Amino acid sequence: MAVTGIDLGGTKACGALFDAHGNIICKESRLLDGRTGKAVGELVCSIAAEMSASAGSEPIEAVSVCVPGIANAKTDTVWAPNIAGWEQYPLKQQIEAATPGVPVVIESDRTCCILGETWKGAAQGAENAVFIVVGTGIGMGILIDGHIINGHAGITGAAGWLALNMLYEDDYPQFGCFESNASGNGIARCARNALASGNYSESILNKYVPEKITASDVFGAYEAGDALAASVTEKAIKMWGMAAANVISLLNPEIIVWGGGIFGPAVQFLPRIKEEAMRWAQPVAAKQTRFAAAQLGSDAALYGTARLALMNTSPHKITLL
Amino acid sequence: MAVTGIDLGGTKACGALFDAHGNIICKESRLLDGRTGKAVGELVCSIAAEMSASAGSEPIEAVSVCVPGIANAKTDTVWAPNIAGWEQYPLKQQIEAATPGVPVVIESDRTCCILGETWKGAAQGAENAVFIVVGTGIGMGILIDGHIINGHAGITGAAGWLALNMLYEDDYPQFGCFESNASGNGIARCARNALASGNYSESILNKYVPEKITASDVFGAYEAGDALAASVTEKAIKMWGMAAANVISLLNPEIIVWGGGIFGPAVQFLPRIKEEAMRWAQPVAAKQTRFAAAQLGSDAALYGTARLALMNTSPHKITLL
Repeated sequence: MAVTGIDLGGTKACGALFDAHGNIICKESRLLDGRTGKAVGELVCSIAAEMSASAGSEPIEAVSVCVPGIANAKTDTVWAPNIAGWEQYPLKQQIEAATPGVPVVIESDRTCCILGETWKGAAQGAENAVFIVVGTGIGMGILIDGHIINGHAGITGAAGWLALNMLYEDDYPQFGCFESNASGNGIARCARNALASGNYSESILNKYVPEKITASDVFGAYEAGDALAASVTEKAIKMWGMAAANVISLLNPEIIVWGGGIFGPAVQFLPRIKEEAMRWAQPVAAKQTRFAAAQLGSDAALYGTARLALMNTSPHKITLL
Repeated sequence: MAVTGIDLGGTKACGALFDAHGNIICKESRLLDGRTGKAVGELVCSIAAEMSASAGSEPIEAVSVCVPGIANAKTDTVWAPNIAGWEQYPLKQQIEAATPGVPVVIESDRTCCILGETWKGAAQGAENAVFIVVGTGIGMGILIDGHIINGHAGITGAAGWLALNMLYEDDYPQFGCFESNASGNGIARCARNALASGNYSESILNKYVPEKITASDVFGAYEAGDALAASVTEKAIKMWGMAAANVISLLNPEIIVWGGGIFGPAVQFLPRIKEEAMRWAQPVAAKQTRFAAAQLGSDAALYGTARLALMNTSPHKITLL
């Protein structure tokens, strides 16, 4: 028996064929290449067809897709801010039409990341676990009491919007407080704004074209002792700690997994982030929470889709949660 | 058929006998009167016995108790910071010994509050709802996808510890950031600290003995245009809004219910709190969230215990979630 999992991002889609144990049989990546609206759905369907062809005579028993946005399980539509035309997009219906008789499950990428990491990654076996994805933006996958959570309309884990400092800044209406200061794009933007302020004429970041500064450049300058980079990085570390603290106090997870492109290089800061979180969080819950770097890298969400697909195979529904 | 619900607080215990529809048949309050440890458990058992006597020939089919602290469903023990000797206290075992053969369920008071308000109060029928209890402290009851949440060790909803401002203050290790600034005790303490700073010699709050100032005094002075009271109250309003925003962005509730002794008088601020929350929260989720004052007053948790008890009656287990 085989299932197909597809991780759809804002710039590419990656599909894989999995066996019943969640081993990858084959894997394929395709760029979105400027596609919008229905054409993105067609790309997803064509990857599903490729996987089906790769499976040969073995039938695909379920397909699961994760999306870079919100999957509303009540309306069976998705919203993906980086895919033009995907506001209430009927992705599930489109895939079902292309793969008749096969169960289709759609979830958000952040939810699939925590499903992947608690299955085969850094948080194996945990029933209360949170994945903080810090890339160009920030999101959070939440597993609590062994369940993924949907909320009223599937908009759970929108952690980039966490309010962590009373001083309201110009970027917040567009990106949210946490994301404005501590995502990859946020860190780069904070560095550019500091350069533009003219207060850091000594900063080694002045050698870059401002628009091209990345969070990695900022971390590099921080290691070289640059004051501007230190100011931006220390603020991000503090906010990562405060955000983790808030999740601990509200949800009492046993583990917080840090992943996405920034963790990566920011994994070096995990001990300091944990120390910061311990200052703020409910103290009993804080002591119970492990902090770990993601182990599945860019495949976390893909494994999560496989887990969801396997949970939806028929007739022998597997309980993997 | 009848069940017993008991709401145990830090200073008193209130028990009631309920019929199958959750109507109160009779109700009884008893002061803790300095009791500690086992004696508090005995008081709870004696209330359960009184309710059983009031039921006459009708057998009690379940007993549920809520505690002012943490109920750990894995170890069946409770932790209540305001009851001396209740750190890993085996309350369930003690009540079961006193009521042989009757199912006993223990939960936190904040969880029972949201169970009560979503059953018979301001959030009837909601499956995704949050109760923010602002009294001497701050706690949060969370219902998500129709389930109450336990987390790793029952420490969910410890919202008083929410980190909402980067400037770390002296009170935070003891009470948490949110509670230090926006609970009843926190508001009174902020006012006392401001008076002690000597910067508010014109404040009408100077007429009070500092140790006796309450949050109500602060709200009264705020209405009279007092600058100190305005500063303290505005900070609390902002933090209530930010805390609500964080719950919205993480959990996507359809309603947030505000209760406890401070809401009460602070209900007048709900439109401003909502406005503040809308600035910070994930915008799509924010638009979906109603804000409401609690309707069951001090009986919210008691109704929640009845709901839990009814869910545990046997043989005809009722699904009330």
